[in-house]
Amino acid sequence: MPQLGFLHGRAWAALLGQLRRPPGAVCIGAVHSHSQAAEATLASQLKPHKEKSNFIIKTPKGTRDFSPQQMVVREKILDMVISCFKRHGAKRLDTPAFELKEMLTERYGEDSGLIYDLKDQGGELLSLRYDLTVPFARYLAMNKVKKMKRYHVGKVWRRESPTIAQGRYREFCQCDFDIAGHFDPMIPDAECLKIMCEILSGLQLGDFLIKMSWKDVRHEMVAKKGLAPEVADRIGDYVQCHGGVSLVEHMFQDPELCQNKQALEGLGDLKLLFDYLTLFGIAEKVSFDLSLARGLDYYTGVIYEAVLLQTPAQAEEETLNVGSVAAGGRYDGLVGMFDPRGHKVPCVGLSIGVERIFSIVEQRMKTFGQKIRTIETQVFVATPQKNFLRERLKLIAELWDAGIKAELMYKNNPKLLTQLHYCEDMAIPLVVIIGEQELKEGFIKLRSVASREEVAIKRENLVAEVQRRLS
Amino acid sequence: MPQLGFLHGRAWAALLGQLRRPPGAVCIGAVHSHSQAAEATLASQLKPHKEKSNFIIKTPKGTRDFSPQQMVVREKILDMVISCFKRHGAKRLDTPAFELKEMLTERYGEDSGLIYDLKDQGGELLSLRYDLTVPFARYLAMNKVKKMKRYHVGKVWRRESPTIAQGRYREFCQCDFDIAGHFDPMIPDAECLKIMCEILSGLQLGDFLIKMSWKDVRHEMVAKKGLAPEVADRIGDYVQCHGGVSLVEHMFQDPELCQNKQALEGLGDLKLLFDYLTLFGIAEKVSFDLSLARGLDYYTGVIYEAVLLQTPAQAEEETLNVGSVAAGGRYDGLVGMFDPRGHKVPCVGLSIGVERIFSIVEQRMKTFGQKIRTIETQVFVATPQKNFLRERLKLIAELWDAGIKAELMYKNNPKLLTQLHYCEDMAIPLVVIIGEQELKEGFIKLRSVASREEVAIKRENLVAEVQRRLS
Repeated sequence: MPQLGFLHGRAWAALLGQLRRPPGAVCIGAVHSHSQAAEATLASQLKPHKEKSNFIIKTPKGTRDFSPQQMVVREKILDMVISCFKRHGAKRLDTPAFELKEMLTERYGEDSGLIYDLKDQGGELLSLRYDLTVPFARYLAMNKVKKMKRYHVGKVWRRESPTIAQGRYREFCQCDFDIAGHFDPMIPDAECLKIMCEILSGLQLGDFLIKMSWKDVRHEMVAKKGLAPEVADRIGDYVQCHGGVSLVEHMFQDPELCQNKQALEGLGDLKLLFDYLTLFGIAEKVSFDLSLARGLDYYTGVIYEAVLLQTPAQAEEETLNVGSVAAGGRYDGLVGMFDPRGHKVPCVGLSIGVERIFSIVEQRMKTFGQKIRTIETQVFVATPQKNFLRERLKLIAELWDAGIKAELMYKNNPKLLTQLHYCEDMAIPLVVIIGEQELKEGFIKLRSVASREEVAIKRENLVAEVQRRLS
Repeated sequence: MPQLGFLHGRAWAALLGQLRRPPGAVCIGAVHSHSQAAEATLASQLKPHKEKSNFIIKTPKGTRDFSPQQMVVREKILDMVISCFKRHGAKRLDTPAFELKEMLTERYGEDSGLIYDLKDQGGELLSLRYDLTVPFARYLAMNKVKKMKRYHVGKVWRRESPTIAQGRYREFCQCDFDIAGHFDPMIPDAECLKIMCEILSGLQLGDFLIKMSWKDVRHEMVAKKGLAPEVADRIGDYVQCHGGVSLVEHMFQDPELCQNKQALEGLGDLKLLFDYLTLFGIAEKVSFDLSLARGLDYYTGVIYEAVLLQTPAQAEEETLNVGSVAAGGRYDGLVGMFDPRGHKVPCVGLSIGVERIFSIVEQRMKTFGQKIRTIETQVFVATPQKNFLRERLKLIAELWDAGIKAELMYKNNPKLLTQLHYCEDMAIPLVVIIGEQELKEGFIKLRSVASREEVAIKRENLVAEVQRRLS
């Protein structure tokens, strides 16, 4: 199975490994959104204090804050997705959050009504970007770029009815990979499907399937390759019975189809794609779906969508109906719509549904009560003595200057127990303990939080010793 | 001098090291924005084709795309800033791009007019966030968080007259670090100044100075500590003559001041702060500035701002007037404004002006004509033969599945020279060359792009050999 890059893969495995512990083994619940609880309690608290504050403190409908716990999980997911995009040679691009309104209108069909407009405060009419594909096409046309393999990770905004239980928000992150340029048929398309498989396998979300829209393939055959509709429908019969690579093989054995030159031509690209998917070892992951059809107006060829296949146990356990976790397709006409001369740049790409993936991982972590470390602090500088702040400050600056991640309490006289408890709570591996007596003799105590072992080391060797233990 | 984290520091040093090459040593200009050139050429090209497209393709005023070259530099800068924030134990937080309009109004004083509002399309009235500080205060109040050390990296939007030459945009990235909570005086404040110094030193931008606003310190002494205005002005005399730590020492030697109990109390916090800055080894980097005064309404105490000190040679070479590259201060009242009971959570923080820093680095790279690698591809899969696509696809999938960053040409019959040129252009270190003859004998050629050396290796050892060479 495809695996993500070594380091990331390992980090992820560690995280996932923890998840696999039996429920109850870890006692502290995590990844919980502060916001829902806060909203509930706020309503009651506001009553006796209406004179002070006559608004409810909340985020806008369909949006949310991400707590440090959530950010750790999000960043791990994004790191894995990005490392896959880089593995396939993509460059990173970024575009503004808003575009000229006219750049976005009429690109999305009936979805255009869901675009957020900015208020006319003088100057240009602007809208928040609805996806990362249209800004990419605008970038290519504007800069006359004819060939580019890029990825883009950023937020997009849609005025949808938020059904938060399904992981749908009005603000959400998209992770897109696209290949623009004139190339030999189906090679970039196959790579996009390969990337989807690598990411979904690497994230270890469970079994998945990529469904290709039959309607769009049929349209392509009839409208563009001139295949007779009845022959296309004959092919459609196969689509209903079989899926993916075996479907194509069956069709090539059908005497009615394989003696029809048009049909063979129409099937050529499809055969090519499945050939490449076979070489990539992912043909069995891809099949046709009769019900799927293009979502946005700019798609020109086959579109595809990845869905997770829940086991019956999972379906019972996870109330979340996750649906599509990745989608993509070909949009050969979009760049030309922006180009003043109409020059086309064929494109194919995919978008990873990281918000849905995040919801799934978050829910699983909740189920297993997994604690997440939100800081990376390596050393805590503590003291059992009063009036020892200056010594702590001097010492911690040495650690920081050596690149060591270090913290202390912002108190003149903190209690030693409080300091040590903090280290245990936050899983900080090492504590430096400074006391007057030791300091006079030129020593400092170094404590391992896990084993509670303490050793005295020479003051001047502290940084080197800490670095040695952390490496 | 403070240095950023080891790995990042090294990566940065490598980047900066390249910059120090004499101009002309590297021939290919880089970090150039496609957009300006494109806008210029577009205007002329649009004329004969007005019927096709009656709009200019551009990004909104004051915004820009970031090309892959720019993204590489931005990410390196952001990585260094974030690694410093993590070194100081901060957790990451994220908030939505827009807030309820009422959350933002009246928080920024006269700057409130620069807030972008969203169009009223039904539902809540929304505005794009103007900074990351107010959303942080809203988060703390909403979730009743009394203590938090967090960082936040994200875009903010301001309807300013864009003077792009000075690195000012309407959309820009902010990198904020803040400490919220009741602590003993001046410890978190000193850490914020320390962080500023670490980041500015680590980025190797040249000498810098942090200027503290005297006006705000005086206000604090008179209005809050009850110091007589004439005594405060006596202190002000010192401020005009001296800066920073020596100033405080001089004042404590002034008989008129040191015999005045109120004056001593008023000076106490200041003395404490400079004590801590001395322990951190950064006191000489901080001085007072008479002209500086609070920018935004929410600041409650001393505010500070970091400026780069250009050498005369730099001032001549760099047309960019960079001004402030970091700023911060204390805002003890902001959280209370959101809390229904008015509960205060004192806060102090800083914001790194990454856009300005990015402009400086970008300009220096332009000056030195530095080439930037925008992809991380490690291996290219090439062939000298026609009709060898399937073999290439099969082989590259093996590399991807092993976590190796690999690319190939999306052509059935690419020319070998074109393939090798691409590798040299993109500084891809290794090329795998598959030919029919070798493959029959179970061998494959591995070429080092730098040395142009080629060795034959066993087909089944390919992945292991590539991994060995890359490690």
